[in-house]
Amino acid sequence: MQFQPILEDIVATLQPQLGAAGRVADYIPALARVPAAQFGIALRTCDGQEAAAGDCRVPFSIQSISKLFALTMGMRVMGDALWQRIGREPSGNPFNSLVQLEAEQGTPRNPFINAGAIAVTDRLVSHGDAKAEMLTLLSGLCNEPVHFDEEVAASEAATGFRNIALGNFMKSFGKIDNDVATVLDVYFHHCALAMNCVQLARATGYLCRDGLHPYNGHHLLTERQTRRVNALMLTCGTYDAAGEFAFLIGLPCKSGVGGGIVAVVPDHLSLCVWSPALDATGNSLLGMKALELFTAKTGLSVF
Amino acid sequence: MQFQPILEDIVATLQPQLGAAGRVADYIPALARVPAAQFGIALRTCDGQEAAAGDCRVPFSIQSISKLFALTMGMRVMGDALWQRIGREPSGNPFNSLVQLEAEQGTPRNPFINAGAIAVTDRLVSHGDAKAEMLTLLSGLCNEPVHFDEEVAASEAATGFRNIALGNFMKSFGKIDNDVATVLDVYFHHCALAMNCVQLARATGYLCRDGLHPYNGHHLLTERQTRRVNALMLTCGTYDAAGEFAFLIGLPCKSGVGGGIVAVVPDHLSLCVWSPALDATGNSLLGMKALELFTAKTGLSVF
Amino acid sequence: MQFQPILEDIVATLQPQLGAAGRVADYIPALARVPAAQFGIALRTCDGQEAAAGDCRVPFSIQSISKLFALTMGMRVMGDALWQRIGREPSGNPFNSLVQLEAEQGTPRNPFINAGAIAVTDRLVSHGDAKAEMLTLLSGLCNEPVHFDEEVAASEAATGFRNIALGNFMKSFGKIDNDVATVLDVYFHHCALAMNCVQLARATGYLCRDGLHPYNGHHLLTERQTRRVNALMLTCGTYDAAGEFAFLIGLPCKSGVGGGIVAVVPDHLSLCVWSPALDATGNSLLGMKALELFTAKTGLSVF
Amino acid sequence: MQFQPILEDIVATLQPQLGAAGRVADYIPALARVPAAQFGIALRTCDGQEAAAGDCRVPFSIQSISKLFALTMGMRVMGDALWQRIGREPSGNPFNSLVQLEAEQGTPRNPFINAGAIAVTDRLVSHGDAKAEMLTLLSGLCNEPVHFDEEVAASEAATGFRNIALGNFMKSFGKIDNDVATVLDVYFHHCALAMNCVQLARATGYLCRDGLHPYNGHHLLTERQTRRVNALMLTCGTYDAAGEFAFLIGLPCKSGVGGGIVAVVPDHLSLCVWSPALDATGNSLLGMKALELFTAKTGLSVF
Repeated sequence: MQFQPILEDIVATLQPQLGAAGRVADYIPALARVPAAQFGIALRTCDGQEAAAGDCRVPFSIQSISKLFALTMGMRVMGDALWQRIGREPSGNPFNSLVQLEAEQGTPRNPFINAGAIAVTDRLVSHGDAKAEMLTLLSGLCNEPVHFDEEVAASEAATGFRNIALGNFMKSFGKIDNDVATVLDVYFHHCALAMNCVQLARATGYLCRDGLHPYNGHHLLTERQTRRVNALMLTCGTYDAAGEFAFLIGLPCKSGVGGGIVAVVPDHLSLCVWSPALDATGNSLLGMKALELFTAKTGLSVF
Repeated sequence: MQFQPILEDIVATLQPQLGAAGRVADYIPALARVPAAQFGIALRTCDGQEAAAGDCRVPFSIQSISKLFALTMGMRVMGDALWQRIGREPSGNPFNSLVQLEAEQGTPRNPFINAGAIAVTDRLVSHGDAKAEMLTLLSGLCNEPVHFDEEVAASEAATGFRNIALGNFMKSFGKIDNDVATVLDVYFHHCALAMNCVQLARATGYLCRDGLHPYNGHHLLTERQTRRVNALMLTCGTYDAAGEFAFLIGLPCKSGVGGGIVAVVPDHLSLCVWSPALDATGNSLLGMKALELFTAKTGLSVF
Repeated sequence: MQFQPILEDIVATLQPQLGAAGRVADYIPALARVPAAQFGIALRTCDGQEAAAGDCRVPFSIQSISKLFALTMGMRVMGDALWQRIGREPSGNPFNSLVQLEAEQGTPRNPFINAGAIAVTDRLVSHGDAKAEMLTLLSGLCNEPVHFDEEVAASEAATGFRNIALGNFMKSFGKIDNDVATVLDVYFHHCALAMNCVQLARATGYLCRDGLHPYNGHHLLTERQTRRVNALMLTCGTYDAAGEFAFLIGLPCKSGVGGGIVAVVPDHLSLCVWSPALDATGNSLLGMKALELFTAKTGLSVF
Repeated sequence: MQFQPILEDIVATLQPQLGAAGRVADYIPALARVPAAQFGIALRTCDGQEAAAGDCRVPFSIQSISKLFALTMGMRVMGDALWQRIGREPSGNPFNSLVQLEAEQGTPRNPFINAGAIAVTDRLVSHGDAKAEMLTLLSGLCNEPVHFDEEVAASEAATGFRNIALGNFMKSFGKIDNDVATVLDVYFHHCALAMNCVQLARATGYLCRDGLHPYNGHHLLTERQTRRVNALMLTCGTYDAAGEFAFLIGLPCKSGVGGGIVAVVPDHLSLCVWSPALDATGNSLLGMKALELFTAKTGLSVF
């Protein structure tokens, strides 16, 4: 399939809607000042073909998309032991997050809600320098250097009272081993990674290749682990709209409040869309539309 | 692929575990007296190849698997209007069901929880004779007559206080149009359908064929609708273990407390396993193991 | 203390506010058509002094105030055994009612929420003719005949889907012994008692006299039981505003959505106010103001 | 009434049960090592009569009883403005605390749950040196110096992850003005006050005297404010057993996990009981029994 014209077509279709609806995340200044009227898309196939269009090289804050890479690092260093303190079920809705954390004794529902990613990060902190390792992993996957946006990381730390609450709440159940402030420093840095669509399409390439690193020929994850990451993305990857994503788009996705969404078509390609204005569920409004257009035009779906 | 030896191999592998763990549903006598030590498996490929092993012709109570067929009937008669009163998101956990129904003003989370299926049934009751139509649909899909087990239906009705509560609770929000007793009579009959593995493998055949009826050459659902049913099965089809099923098995599934589980490999085959002893989540214990073995042996997965 | 001028003063003070704010309960026609601009007040002291003013002889639907008399009947026939299936704690808020009922396995929080009163009524149904006994009890306490408003009872039954849900939900936990429809018929009749302020001030007279019946010289409840009923009124008697009532008024009270509120000053007097327009918590708006005025003018309070 | 023999009688009655049941709070070492087999009781009447028996001069950690004095300080400096960020309703049960805090946007249910007391402390921190002022207040009320137990305060701080979570969670809703660590330092010190029964009976003397300070002749609170504090103690003062306390004891009470309980008989006396072993609700087991005996022997009750 020729993907470049498809991506360009999607860009053209969405052009009139740029900035017309949705809301840019505004809880920290560095995110609030991102212009809404931007849209980028990029993909990379299993056999290394790349296509990209629109603002595909504009860096943005990947935010919760980093939970995908933190999970990957956690599965690499800990294997199945990672799941001793983290569940694998959808969380229902935002309202439930703390209820569930309380009812389930500090064990978060899955690694893609904040509490779950903080728990994964705690494990990473116990095993090494989780900030440096994240940069190494992503720079390798992208084949070019990747950086933290230190302004975003500092802002997250200065305003992250709810995440401090989550971390301390889990620690009160004995489910966080390290100092909460240390864990959150790493977590906030991971969220503050600045990347662009082309980089993220590359960086998620192992997820459509049964775990195989796109450049170095080694398995980042086993085939079985890779399927499981894809399954978690589909059931839990897009906040409280996972059912809606599965219903409308039908691909494993992981979104972030910076407006990025990565998607995987197993054995075919990995893909990243980005547009900063979000819908009420915290997912990129045009990003979702772009993914619907892409699956409609290509017929690709896991179902 | 030669499926018959694979299914026989699975039967042989599970033989020593028959009846060793799990618990048969016992809330009504007709279910409680089903011998635990039974296991059956059957599949049918897109091109009509069939394979079956073990107790594949023993009829059992399909229970919640009927929600899949009720949803299909609802999508046929109402199209997208069906979703005005029913959500498409996982429900989190059993504890939340009533909280959510209250918080969300009587709109059930999805069509595969009891409240959601009762809401679907209410729509069906408004459109025709939903008991007769279900028998017609399933008999056509199976190419042989399918019946209700009237003893089971009567027992469900006599003990179904929680479902009566759910129906009346939704009606108190104005979300049920018909008389609750009438709706529940249909709902309890649908749950009381007696079918076997071979029949259910056939009856779900349209889900791996983009909606095409296995015998009459017509589309039961459109391709797009079919993908959406599969998506809902994957995110919501197995009670509160949907994340776990996706993680371990990676196929759209729908289970029932009678011990049956149907699974779909899109564009390949549909499959039914059955064993009456359930795990704590209400899913068939050996059924889940059989599906794990099947995906491991065949490499089939949507991820 | 001379109470008659105090009550007349309260009527005069509230006169300009009659019908100006709040909302008459409108879930059934018989309640919806009650004119909002009415206010009545009456009291009876321990030694038999009576005072009354305003619309003190206009009959109204006592609704949840009947829960007080049902509880009294339950304590008489069952003693402490009544508490085996009913709690004695405030319920938090409306949102929680079903959560708590689910979390606490069908045991309602207290006898003054709907679920609790339905559970009490179930016990009464097991012990006799709870409709006739209620009329006998109240007619004796009022020294004049008291009746059910059959139109209200019929309307409650025709629209009481949420109460049907509550009854069946408790029955699903094995916590209701009798047929739910039978229990609810009694419950709806109790709610549909038509009484006026003078009657209710008399009928609650035993609560300020350590349980002594105002006319027949016998103990309806023991002193200890009476204190406990007053304690329950204070902590649980006014829906989700019990804390607010204790804070602002400082007396044991029980309210109903018909706009009535009864209050007890132990060892002094019992009192009833009525005005149909309700505030957001379902309590009579002017009724609450009248009670605040009364306690401010008289200095009476349990604190 | 002669209270000294009554208190001695209660001590004699409870003697055989000392240390036989219940559990000393063990979440910090300084509390865990308190010997369980201790019991003290003391009271002070409105007119200055004192009585005391048992371990009435053994200092203990007053813990949540300090919430009563913090509330009093808050009402003094802020008047009704205090209630802008704090509710006055019972919280239902422990499970709900975080649910409610989330559902109610960071506004705690009442000043006697941890979240509420942290919110009160935040207001105190905005108005002055809340540690020094607490010592001044209590030393004045007791007519002898009162101190913090710095070991307890340090332990609370070192292990108080759940309170850190609560403080940050409220701050995430914009409901805490000061630095969370600063607020919690004050809160942990208040909880760590070491006092004995005689001191606490004196210190709560203003609550039975319409707000009048027992020694300096001034009103600490107005009569109206005092009634309201008593009302809050009755509806919210004993964790999730407030309904049970009202039902069994019938007095405004405030308890702490150090095993102390203070109680007020308005216009009569204030009283403190202490015994370190707690029941499942976190209230002193023998303390509750002592209060039941006291009200049975004296006939004192607000109902």
